Amino acid sequence: MNEELQIVPAVLEEYGAVTRKALREYLTPKAPRRYLYDLINDYPSRGGRMLRPSLCLATARAYGAPLAYAIHAAVALELIHNAFLVHDDVEDESLERRGRPTLPAMHGVALSVNVGDALAVTALRALLDSRGVLGHRLAGRVVEETERMMRESIEGQAMDLGWRQDNLTGLDERDYLDMVFRKTCWYTTIYPSRVGALVGGRDSETLDGFVRYGFFLGAAFQIQDDLLNLLGDHDAYGKELSGDLWEGKRTLMVIELLRASEGEERQRVAAILARPRSARSRQDVAWLRRCMDEHGCIEYARSVAHAMAGAAIHEASKIYGGLAPSRDKEFLEALPRWVLARA
Amino acid sequence: MNEELQIVPAVLEEYGAVTRKALREYLTPKAPRRYLYDLINDYPSRGGRMLRPSLCLATARAYGAPLAYAIHAAVALELIHNAFLVHDDVEDESLERRGRPTLPAMHGVALSVNVGDALAVTALRALLDSRGVLGHRLAGRVVEETERMMRESIEGQAMDLGWRQDNLTGLDERDYLDMVFRKTCWYTTIYPSRVGALVGGRDSETLDGFVRYGFFLGAAFQIQDDLLNLLGDHDAYGKELSGDLWEGKRTLMVIELLRASEGEERQRVAAILARPRSARSRQDVAWLRRCMDEHGCIEYARSVAHAMAGAAIHEASKIYGGLAPSRDKEFLEALPRWVLARA
Repeated sequence: MNEELQIVPAVLEEYGAVTRKALREYLTPKAPRRYLYDLINDYPSRGGRMLRPSLCLATARAYGAPLAYAIHAAVALELIHNAFLVHDDVEDESLERRGRPTLPAMHGVALSVNVGDALAVTALRALLDSRGVLGHRLAGRVVEETERMMRESIEGQAMDLGWRQDNLTGLDERDYLDMVFRKTCWYTTIYPSRVGALVGGRDSETLDGFVRYGFFLGAAFQIQDDLLNLLGDHDAYGKELSGDLWEGKRTLMVIELLRASEGEERQRVAAILARPRSARSRQDVAWLRRCMDEHGCIEYARSVAHAMAGAAIHEASKIYGGLAPSRDKEFLEALPRWVLARA
Repeated sequence: MNEELQIVPAVLEEYGAVTRKALREYLTPKAPRRYLYDLINDYPSRGGRMLRPSLCLATARAYGAPLAYAIHAAVALELIHNAFLVHDDVEDESLERRGRPTLPAMHGVALSVNVGDALAVTALRALLDSRGVLGHRLAGRVVEETERMMRESIEGQAMDLGWRQDNLTGLDERDYLDMVFRKTCWYTTIYPSRVGALVGGRDSETLDGFVRYGFFLGAAFQIQDDLLNLLGDHDAYGKELSGDLWEGKRTLMVIELLRASEGEERQRVAAILARPRSARSRQDVAWLRRCMDEHGCIEYARSVAHAMAGAAIHEASKIYGGLAPSRDKEFLEALPRWVLARA
């Protein structure tokens, strides 16, 4: 990795540790352990990059707020992220998460749905606790941001799930970006930035600027994530490779494959995608993967990801240009390039 | 029904209509409709008694608060109730709800889990909107009560699900009441009463009194509900009859059956309960039902429900005794007897 991007893993490590420490307080096991609190601790204890809480903390600091102003939101965001992961794994019938069997694969759908609910409610508790440092009014504003972020994520998730369930085959890049804007960008980039600026005392005009910036950065992040799902190193990625193909997800590569293929080939692509997960074979998945190479779907998605990251760099220079130099500012400015460089 | 209990359906109708009207604002269909907002509207549009929001509104009024102080909490509670119903139906693999197929039976597990999440987040929005009438501090206190209520419900749900999943056969009445205290009482009776008193300006000592009262009232309600599941009229009840037996739920009657039966009979009861839902036959369910009659399990549960309702009447006289006479007070005082009289 490029030397100037080294700031990113360094800051992720530092703020990740800060968040993990604060998180522990909300994940103390208590009764009923066996059916709830032991399970709640599972995903958060599997590690993860802590990108989202770190972005929130770094933005707050870059705008002059102490860490204490943003730590509850950072913890809540990480809890909500884990709540989403658990429900996603139920909804997608996924088998692996961060290198181990998913919660529903180990404990069944019923307990897992309930564990996801518990993680989300614990996030609300963390946000309520922020009233002590932020006061009632500002803490309420952060809860308001959280409500918006969760709503956007759920809307995007509905699109993603519904497209698969109905086996839509006529989607285009705009549909994809609209879905990713809601499903990924709001909670990965827009919310952490907005809340960081909010507790740093910025007005709603400044906050609105993060919607554009966060869209470009988040879309680059999601496309890169989908590419890693196809191309990555299994041990580093921690999920089953090509898992998205097994699950029939409408990634940008799948949408491009449906657009670029014709006749019998297109029919076969659509037929494979229409099957339930359990009826897709290893051969089906390998064949889809080869077709993507033949039609240049990977290269196409890579070029969109680069365009998005370029736009994010441009927006970042406008947003952060006026801020005093700091380690946090450096981190924020390096993020768009890091998103593409990560393996 | 006894004439003095007629106040209950009358008040339920009035406050139910008030809640439904306010609820409509939060359920306006928008995009994505097909995979999310049309589905969100499904359960709330199926009717229901509106017991919980009515209890909240009546308590607020009895303590001198205008309806406007409690309406957002009433709406939020009804939304959370529906969120629980959707996730319950996924977790229990239930087939019928309020006389029609369940959401997962119609639209699959994936979209249904997401719809439940959306209903809970919409509840948060309603609570945030209460800041306009209650101010930031008091609205925050209501959110705090909501967080507690949801946490208790999720803990109770974990017990209920886990007991079935592990096919526990040595549970007793105390285990059952502990589970129901969390799973049913908090959101059905304790929360509505506490929030009503809270927006009516009462202190936390008064609020604590509702934990006891709400436990007795809620336990009577749940046992009666479980009895109706076995004995009720299908059309009035709106769920499959004996659905709890199909699902292997640890109701008080099942716990008593396991306690009272011996030898081969007990082994057969445990073996039937251990099977997955799909492996239980109509004969199995009918046989369990007969054994319950033979061992007096129905009568036993009925007597516990009566004892609980009696205790609730006693607590109610202590709590509401000092309040000025009002229609709301009459309603609150009639509730424990109505809970047992309803069909």
